[in-house]
Formats: sequence, C-alpha cells, structure tokens
Amino acid sequence: MNSYGTLFRITTFGESHGPAIGVVVDGCPAGLEINEAFIQQELSRRRPGQSKITTQRKEEDSFKILSGVFEGKSTGTPIALLIENQDQRSKDYSHVENVFRPSHADYTYEAKYGFRDHRGGGRSSARETAARVAAGAIAKLLLQEQGINIQAFVSRVGDIVTPHYTSLDLSKTEDNIVRCPDGEVAQKMISLIDAVRLERDTIGGVVTCVIKNSPVGLGEPVFDKLHAELGKAMLSINAVKGFEYGSGFEGVTLRGSQHNDIFYTEDGKVRTKTNFSGGVQGGISNGEEIYFNVAFKPVATIMQDQDTVDKDNNPAVVSGKGRHDPCVVPRAVPIVEAMAALVMADFLLRAKSSKL
Amino acid sequence: MNSYGTLFRITTFGESHGPAIGVVVDGCPAGLEINEAFIQQELSRRRPGQSKITTQRKEEDSFKILSGVFEGKSTGTPIALLIENQDQRSKDYSHVENVFRPSHADYTYEAKYGFRDHRGGGRSSARETAARVAAGAIAKLLLQEQGINIQAFVSRVGDIVTPHYTSLDLSKTEDNIVRCPDGEVAQKMISLIDAVRLERDTIGGVVTCVIKNSPVGLGEPVFDKLHAELGKAMLSINAVKGFEYGSGFEGVTLRGSQHNDIFYTEDGKVRTKTNFSGGVQGGISNGEEIYFNVAFKPVATIMQDQDTVDKDNNPAVVSGKGRHDPCVVPRAVPIVEAMAALVMADFLLRAKSSKL
Amino acid sequence: MNSYGTLFRITTFGESHGPAIGVVVDGCPAGLEINEAFIQQELSRRRPGQSKITTQRKEEDSFKILSGVFEGKSTGTPIALLIENQDQRSKDYSHVENVFRPSHADYTYEAKYGFRDHRGGGRSSARETAARVAAGAIAKLLLQEQGINIQAFVSRVGDIVTPHYTSLDLSKTEDNIVRCPDGEVAQKMISLIDAVRLERDTIGGVVTCVIKNSPVGLGEPVFDKLHAELGKAMLSINAVKGFEYGSGFEGVTLRGSQHNDIFYTEDGKVRTKTNFSGGVQGGISNGEEIYFNVAFKPVATIMQDQDTVDKDNNPAVVSGKGRHDPCVVPRAVPIVEAMAALVMADFLLRAKSSKL
Amino acid sequence: MNSYGTLFRITTFGESHGPAIGVVVDGCPAGLEINEAFIQQELSRRRPGQSKITTQRKEEDSFKILSGVFEGKSTGTPIALLIENQDQRSKDYSHVENVFRPSHADYTYEAKYGFRDHRGGGRSSARETAARVAAGAIAKLLLQEQGINIQAFVSRVGDIVTPHYTSLDLSKTEDNIVRCPDGEVAQKMISLIDAVRLERDTIGGVVTCVIKNSPVGLGEPVFDKLHAELGKAMLSINAVKGFEYGSGFEGVTLRGSQHNDIFYTEDGKVRTKTNFSGGVQGGISNGEEIYFNVAFKPVATIMQDQDTVDKDNNPAVVSGKGRHDPCVVPRAVPIVEAMAALVMADFLLRAKSSKL
Repeated sequence: MNSYGTLFRITTFGESHGPAIGVVVDGCPAGLEINEAFIQQELSRRRPGQSKITTQRKEEDSFKILSGVFEGKSTGTPIALLIENQDQRSKDYSHVENVFRPSHADYTYEAKYGFRDHRGGGRSSARETAARVAAGAIAKLLLQEQGINIQAFVSRVGDIVTPHYTSLDLSKTEDNIVRCPDGEVAQKMISLIDAVRLERDTIGGVVTCVIKNSPVGLGEPVFDKLHAELGKAMLSINAVKGFEYGSGFEGVTLRGSQHNDIFYTEDGKVRTKTNFSGGVQGGISNGEEIYFNVAFKPVATIMQDQDTVDKDNNPAVVSGKGRHDPCVVPRAVPIVEAMAALVMADFLLRAKSSKL
Repeated sequence: MNSYGTLFRITTFGESHGPAIGVVVDGCPAGLEINEAFIQQELSRRRPGQSKITTQRKEEDSFKILSGVFEGKSTGTPIALLIENQDQRSKDYSHVENVFRPSHADYTYEAKYGFRDHRGGGRSSARETAARVAAGAIAKLLLQEQGINIQAFVSRVGDIVTPHYTSLDLSKTEDNIVRCPDGEVAQKMISLIDAVRLERDTIGGVVTCVIKNSPVGLGEPVFDKLHAELGKAMLSINAVKGFEYGSGFEGVTLRGSQHNDIFYTEDGKVRTKTNFSGGVQGGISNGEEIYFNVAFKPVATIMQDQDTVDKDNNPAVVSGKGRHDPCVVPRAVPIVEAMAALVMADFLLRAKSSKL
Repeated sequence: MNSYGTLFRITTFGESHGPAIGVVVDGCPAGLEINEAFIQQELSRRRPGQSKITTQRKEEDSFKILSGVFEGKSTGTPIALLIENQDQRSKDYSHVENVFRPSHADYTYEAKYGFRDHRGGGRSSARETAARVAAGAIAKLLLQEQGINIQAFVSRVGDIVTPHYTSLDLSKTEDNIVRCPDGEVAQKMISLIDAVRLERDTIGGVVTCVIKNSPVGLGEPVFDKLHAELGKAMLSINAVKGFEYGSGFEGVTLRGSQHNDIFYTEDGKVRTKTNFSGGVQGGISNGEEIYFNVAFKPVATIMQDQDTVDKDNNPAVVSGKGRHDPCVVPRAVPIVEAMAALVMADFLLRAKSSKL
Repeated sequence: MNSYGTLFRITTFGESHGPAIGVVVDGCPAGLEINEAFIQQELSRRRPGQSKITTQRKEEDSFKILSGVFEGKSTGTPIALLIENQDQRSKDYSHVENVFRPSHADYTYEAKYGFRDHRGGGRSSARETAARVAAGAIAKLLLQEQGINIQAFVSRVGDIVTPHYTSLDLSKTEDNIVRCPDGEVAQKMISLIDAVRLERDTIGGVVTCVIKNSPVGLGEPVFDKLHAELGKAMLSINAVKGFEYGSGFEGVTLRGSQHNDIFYTEDGKVRTKTNFSGGVQGGISNGEEIYFNVAFKPVATIMQDQDTVDKDNNPAVVSGKGRHDPCVVPRAVPIVEAMAALVMADFLLRAKSSKL
C-alpha cells in the first residue's frame, strides 16, 4: 500500500508522467506553523538539475497546499500537498514500452499488475520521493519544535569514503554539490562521479544520517523497534540495498567487552561512554545520537546498450535515453532525512501513551 | 505494538519469567494442515541448551495450541500458541533490579515505561523469539503448499566467513552445531566461539537467508517493498544491527554496467543472468532467489565486571550471571527463517488482490 | 484518521473553502476500466443545487484523475481524484468565526484542535462526502464486475414512510427529486420538505440501502463483521444518528420462532425463506439481499435565530446564512451507496484469502 | 481479523469447546493498577448460569494473567488473559455437525472457510465475548483513572420498555437479575422472559449505555467518529441488529429548531441545554453524557423443531439442545459496557496527539 506511519501517517500518489504527484499527511497535530519556504527548500535539495553531477532534467517541483493549513498553521486535518509534473518527455520512454530495462521495476510491475504505465517508470519512478520530501519537511517542522535535528550526508561513493561522522563538521554538508561535509573527500567523489558519467556508466554510494537531541523513549519494543522502522523507511527508498545502524556490519567482529556501551552519569543524565548502540537499545532511543548508513546501488539506467527481453519473451536491446543521474547519493540525502523525520515524528506521537 | 503483518498477522506476548509466552496467528487461511511435529522441531532448533556453544539454560519450549485448529487443520480463526516458561531462575536477576546492564534494554524500558519487569530482561528477553519461531512454522507450512522454501545459515562469526551462498550446499546447514553449511568453516567458527566463551566474552556474526521458488509479484511498491519489509522483520530481532540484500553494501562499489542483471528467457520464463538484485526489483519479487544478510552484534551479557549506573544515577558494577550465549547466530538461524516466512506468507496473501 | 478500509482503502482530504478536496483510492486491483462518465454521474447525484428541495449552492463538482489510471484502466497504484472548490462564499461564514453553531462541530473542533477553519464548516463540512462518492464510484465499478448491485433510496422523511423495500420497484428511485421509489409517498415527502423549508426549518429522514447479488462469505467474524463495518461506514456520514440492518430495532419484539430464517434449497443453492437476518449471519454474507436503514437527523443549520455562546464563553445569537438543505436525505442517497460500495469492495478483496 | 482498536488494541482468540479462550491487550499504558478482583467481577456479570433467566450452563470463567503485569501494575507490554474452557458438553452439538442451524453462523462459516468447528458454535459462539469483557475491564480501569464512567442497562425486552435514561437511577441496575434500573419494569421483563422460556422460545431486547464524565475532544473527525466506532463496536457483538445514539431513529421526526442543542455556559464550561446530540458533535465528544441504544435480536437457538438443510443440501430438522439463554440482554449489559470502554480507552490515547 502507499501509506506509511501509524499516527503521523502519509499517503503518496502519482506517476512520473501523469498530471501530478502528491501526498496526504494525516495526523499532524494542530497548531504547527507550516513554513512553506522550508518545504520548498527541502524540495529544491532533492530536485533534478541542481548540479552537473545530477540528472539535467529540469523540474521546478513547486508545490501547492490543498488542505489542512489555515492562517499558516496545521489544523489537525489532513494536509494535502500537490506537485504538478512538468518537463515530461514521455517520448523518451516509447522505446521501453514493450521492453524490460535491466534492474528496473518494468518486468515485476508487468508481472504483478498485468500491464504498466511505462512512461518514466510510472509509479516506480524516483520522482515519487518528491512527495516523501515534502511530507518529511512537515515532519521536520514538528521535530524542530522538540529540538530534534536530522542531518544526512554522503559518506561514500564507490571506494571513496569519509572518516566516521563524529570527526566531521556536518554543517558543511551543503557546501559542495555531492553533499559530503569533508571538502577534500567531496572533490574526489565529484571527480569520480564525473568520470563515471563520461563513461556513460553509473556508480553507487552510501548516505549516513545522524539524528541529534532525540528524547529517550522513542520506539516500540518487539516489532516496531525504532531502528527496525528506520530500516524499513530507508529500504523503501528506490535503489537502497542495505541498512545498518550504530556499529552495523562492522560490529560483528567485535567482542562484547569492546562493543558494550558503558553507562555513566553526566549532569544528572544517564549517558554512554561509547555509542556502538547507535542511540537505540532494545529498540528504544536512549538519548545518544542515532546514526545509520544507507547503501545505494549504482543507478540502473546507463547510457549503453544492454541485452534484455521484451514482453513477448523475445531478445531485445535497450539503451538509456533521457536524462539520468550517474550517481544517486547526492540527491538521496534529503530523501533519507525526510524518511527519518517521518519515522521520528510518528514515534514521537506514539510515545505519548507509553505510560500513565 | 506487538503485532506484525497485514493479512497474515501475528501478535506475541509474554515475559521471560512470567507464566508463559505465546502468539496469536491471525489470518491463516482455512484448510492448512497444522503439522505439530514440525512446529516443535522448529522450536527445538531455537531452544537454549542445544549444544556446547549455546546457553546452558534448559527450556523444553513445548507448546500447546489453544485455538484455531480443528481436526488437524486451520479453521480460518486465530491460532493461539502457548509456551509455558520453565527453569526460571529469577534470582539470577535480582542483581539487575536496580542497575542498568550495558547495551541492554534495561535503561530504555525504565525510561519509557517508568518501571520494568527486570527478571530475565522481561519483555526484551530474546525468549520472545520463541513465539516468532512457532508462528513462523505455521507460515512455513503455508509457504510449503506453494513450494516456497526458506533456508538460513551462519555465514560469519567474527572474522570467519563462508564463501558466497551460491557455492554452498545449504542442505548441510544442520550438520553442525554452528549451522554453517561449509564444514571446514564451521569448525573454525565453533573454535572461535568456544575460545570467546572461555574468555567470558561474546562475539557477533552474520546469518544469511535464501528464499527459493518465490513466485513473481510478491511485495508492494513504494513503502511496503518486499525487501523493506524483510529488513524491518530482521531488524526487529534482538541484537540485529544491519540488513542487506542482493549485492548489499558491496554493491555500492560496482558500476551500473556491472551491477545490472541482464534479462533472458529460459523455458518461456523471464530470468536474469546475474542476481545482484537479490530476487527483488522495484520492491517486487522477480522469481530469482531472494537472499539477504543479517548482522548480529556480540551478545551484551558478558561474564565480566562492567561499570554502569543504577536507577538513582549512582555508579555501580554489574557482571553477567545466569547462563547466556557466547554468540547468538547459531540459534538465530531459525528465528531469521521464521521472520522471513512471516513476511513471505503475508505478501503471498496480499498479492491475491493485485489484479482483477 | 482520514483513511478507511483495509485492502481497498481510501484517504480523503480537503476543507469546504480551501482550494480543493480529494481522495486517494489505494488497493484497487489493476485492470479495472475506470469509467469517468460514471464517476461524474455519481458526483452529480450528490451535488448541491440539483433541485428545489436541496441547497441552492452551485457546485459543479467536476473531478480530475491525477494518478493510477493509464489508458483508461486502473494500474494497481493509488488513484488520486481531485475536486476543486468553486462558488465559495467564505464571507457567508464570517459571522461564525467566533461563535459556535448549535449541533455543529464548531465547538468540538475548537476544543480538540485549539482552533479551526471556520469557513463553511472546514473539514466537518458535508462537502467532504463528495470525495467519498467519487471513491465509491470506483468501488461500484469493481463490484459491477462481480455483478454486485447497490441501491439506496429515501424511505422516510419526518413521519412519512414507504412500505418495506421488498414491495417497491427500486428502479424508480431516480424518477423524483426526493429519491423515493414510491411516487405517491415521494410527493408527500417533497411537500413536507418544501413546507419545512418555508418555515426556515429542517427535518430528518431515513435512507434504506439494498445490496443485491452479494457472494456468500463476505465479512470477517468477530470485530469486522460485515454489518458492523457497514454500520461504522454509515455512522461516519455527517448527520447520521442510527443504523439497523435486517429486522433491526423492530426485531427485538419478535420471538425466535418468528425471527429465525428457515433454510431451504433452491437450484442447488442454500437460501432462506425469510430474511430477518438482512443477508448477514454471524457477520458474514449468506447470499440473500443485504439491507439496512440509516437515520439522518434534521440539518443543524436553520434560518432562524438561535442562542449560543462564543469563544470567550459569552452569550451570542447565531442564525443560518448561506444556502443549506432543508432535509439531507435526497442527497444522502448516493453517499450511502458510496460508503456501502467501499465496504463491500474491501471485503471482496479480503475474502480472497479466507481459505487455501 | 480478530483485533480491535488503534492504540489500545485487543486481539481475541478461542473457540467455545477448545482448551481456552483469551485476549491480548496491547497498548495499555504502563503504571496502571490491574485490579484482578474487578476483572473477575466483570466476568461474573457476564458468565452463564447466574440466574434463572439465563442459560444454566455452569462456567466459572476464572482467568489467568499470563503477561504484561508486574507487581500489580501494567508494564506497557501486552497483557495476555486466559480463560480455560470448562463444562463443555461437545456431544450436545453432534446433531449440528452436518446441519445448519437457522439464523446461526453455521452456514456462512462453512461457506467462507470450507469447514468449521461445529462444537458450541466454535468461534462464532457468544463465549468469545468473555474475552472482550476481560479486556474491557482493563479499559475501564484506565478510564476510571480519568473519572470516566460507563453504565449500561436493559431498557427493553420485547414490548416492555423503560422511560428515558435521564429519569432512571442507574445505580440500581444490578439490583435485579434482568439488569433494569426501574424495579417495576424489571419485574415485567423477568416475567416475560420466563414465559417465553417456558414456551421454549426466545425474545429480543435493547441495552442502553451511558458514558459519564467523558472529556471534550475524544473521537476523530470523518471516518473514525466517536459514535461510528461505538456503533461498530456494538454491532460486532453477537445478535446485535441496530445502534442509535442521542436522538437516534426518533430524531428523524423532529425539526431542526427542536433538535438543535443550544449552547450555554455553566461554571466557565460550555454546556448544551438539551442533549439530542448524545454527547457527540461532528464525531467528537462535547463533554455531555454520551448515550446510545443497542438492539439485540431474539436468540436463534430455540427448543423447538425447525426445518433446515444439511451440508449436502438435503432437507433436515434441527432442535435446540444444550442450555441456552431465552433472552440475551441481561448478560449483554457487561459486554456492551466492555466494548464501550475499549472504544473510549482507545480514543483517550489517540486524543493525546491532536494538538501541539
């Protein structure tokens, strides 16, 4: 289904080449100031055509609020946001009407639904994430009220990696087009992406996300653990192949005696000396910084001929046309943040009834 | 909340040292033969005390069916399964009544709920996974009707790793106590776990899971992607720190031209030459094998003194007592399979209404 | 929340005097022909200004499909329908900005949310039902595929009642402006409504709904009984005060020996001789006609001065302004049908997994 | 499905003649004192064999708490309650193994699921309501913390009715076996039920429920209106045929000018002079008393021969055996209260996030 969240709940709709995409945000508490400029700014961070290392498609991604806001504040009723589609070149996709692009959703949609809107990937297009970013911006506004802050950045492109986030100055993330807070590493990433683009190829990367000032007690034990829901949220983003939080996959090599986060008290607050837990213990936030990594595969659309089959099971050849990203991670940063914000906002509301 | 799934839906309950734990399986179609011996066998694969490298607690984990089965078949009504607790040594836990064990859920539960059942970790105990395994066994019975097969195994303990699953004979997984299908690697893993145990320490590992014969078309686009739900299910298991499917984190270093899975036709069926997609494209199964890795951290309970704080924020020292696993992955294998089965069963039912 | 349904699921949004209202229909199976003319026709049955006994507001209620339909068919992705607001006379409502209209939602919204969009009742406006009718039209298209037919009509206005539905020709419902299939009774109803209107007052009524050709087996036992969900759906419509199905409140006076529906066989099908059960036994459809009554209170907006209080708890006087219905039932007929269709479509999909 | 509620959520299981029935209460806030004697008292109000006008089956309906309570208080984890079945005379039901009892769920279950547990009605047995009463008792404990009070009583048996609840002393409800607070009317009801019983027949009735001291602001606009959810909850109880709140079906005969509830101020609180609204406006509680009527049909099991058909579509005759209620309403009183409590508890929790 196309809804996400329990109390702070979004429903997205829309195809890449239909009239519009959009999202309904349900459950936002009344009285929140809806800063439209902020929503626009978040959409602009995601939009295509923002730099030389992203797709050159031009989409303004301006939005309209259709409901749920009165005199600048949320009313407690559903907030519907609409983003009209522009600059659609549906003809760019006529060559894939009957052919399945490798590692795209063409074949699985066709098999599941019997037919598909092939134009621009239809519903499976990454364009759907604009709706998530718009909704996520509202979630961020709610979190800001509580002082909760979410920042993502590019920590890896191909083999080029940043140091651990704790040694980076995250305020510098937006200083370069690849959204990596380490300027030197950023330059290498940009060069790599550019080189790959000239080879008419694509490459993958990792986005790291850090959530600061989370209150203690968010997340539900057992199935809806905070990190489990963050994991689902991230894995639901197109092209994501992996999720790890805290010590993650590296942590498996450590001993318990190294990995355990020792408690101590600071200013009357329970803290941990290390943070291999990634701010979450037993599925519930412990007040330390929450951090996690999200792996993105190389973009499936490449500007090269590839073998494939068509709808009638005959061999075919397909080549990327149109305008595509050589690497998705720079534009994925605001999407990761948006999904994290949606999860946190939902748990913030859910936590209100954990005790008498 | 303590429920999982949309149409095939489970609700678990119970604490480690209460009278019983259990699970209600709702939405199982009527007419399924409920093989009780199979359920017991699955529980036995998970139960403590099964080998020298697992905890020496003795729990039989025998279950009773309270409802939903008549004359050996599911009736379409909720199937309640009860597992009574035995061999509880609640006194083993009196030392943690007022003290927070490092990297456990003690502190976060206390903060979230105001107080907690400290005995054996209460609800946060890994004992809760017995209920998942019992429910997962029913899901497996449903999947077997469709020929779908789920097999997990230990692919890593500390730095010791198996080759890629495609070069392993998964039928050998149960041949050794560490549940690794590569006998030689298994011996090294066992030795390592044993050494760590003697050091009164613990270590982490990775479980790999392979799902064979999935039909094409399972999974929902956008939020409830097949791999996103699998990810959430795995991350909801105690001690899990990461999830990746198909090419996973490794995939970020590849080029699109290497990573794309080329379609071809075999016996009138659309297949892919490689399977970096891990059997899922656009969130929907494509008929290839689904595979994923799950990272488990080192067990938090170690038999060593550790600094911590107590409820009143005073410094304290805590040491593991009782009987605990030095490494969780051998017993995690059936849990990973159970959660995978629950996800697959749910999507199998959900897929029934994808087209007219 | 603003969503309804489990598998066939709608989410509505929009206020009376905002830019637009709309609905997202999620879970509609792919391949359904979306007959836009039919959707428009249903909207026109609900729209204001259609006759002398309804409000004289002019709203065209034309809609746009924003997503989920390709080449005239549903694609399995969410279908978003947008209805732009027109002919808003927000000034007509400036007098209620600070005053609570009796038996409206003004006070409760203000108390629950801290403030409210007062224009035209905001979200609590009956205008929201246009979105339900549009979504219900899609549900009807799905039900028509299965031969299921839903027909509602006005069976009571004030004290004027029709005979039991089984003696009426429901094909005549649309022959008069009050939507009562008994022409003589209809004339009396129209006269009564007209008289009440001239008195600047309002009056209540009952809508009866009949569902023919339902398959056996729809509805879930225990909480989601077919009639329980129909009841909730009806009670969620503005101004509804009661719901009864089959023998309803009258049935309480009967003896079991009179009320029981005796089974017999006809053409190899199990049938009942009477239908006090209203087509539902144990919460599940039995193949007989499903029928129920829905009671609507007199419209709260009357063209008379009424005492009330304002936001500051001071006494105030309010009088209806603008253009309102003297009796809601004629326009409620398509709304009742729409909600019934949504419930039936949902259960139709849910029933697909009741047995192996 | 067998779950009910959004935040305060129950899942019931169990058949009449299986080993046990039970319920899992999820979402109860931590720190609530769980008064077991109170739960038992509520179960005893529902249990069979309590008086000469109820079934003579003997069921103690004693319960066990399996989880979620520690040192007498809820822990925030799921509370599982188990009621073992006793005094099952399954043989009493062998005559209906292959035959469909009129106006029971036998036929519809058989059709929906392919087969059924015929003993005692299996899952469709009213015995399932014991689980609701146990869960409802916990909800009542939560509501009592807020001063919210729920009282139901029998307001009608056949043609014998009480005056409007506002002229009754509800504290007298438990003074007689029919649970009618008007002693004289109660005697007539008892005589009628007794007469009907001697005729080996059954009769219907109405239960009225009053909720006092509800806070303002409970209920969600649009689909999850407070009265819509109350309606669903009531209609989900076996044998219920109708629901009305406030003025209900009678209200349709009134003019708006009579029916509107005029606001005034009392002690700084907004009140209404009349309460045709039944304490709910726009789906949200307004602080006045919430009241509603629930119609119960005559019990389907009668001690007389009735024609029917068997599984093979052959004519058959069936007569009630075993021990059954001649009228369900006296024992329905605690069930109605329980379901009302579950709805109110859920909305109480949901209301916590309606505004900043």
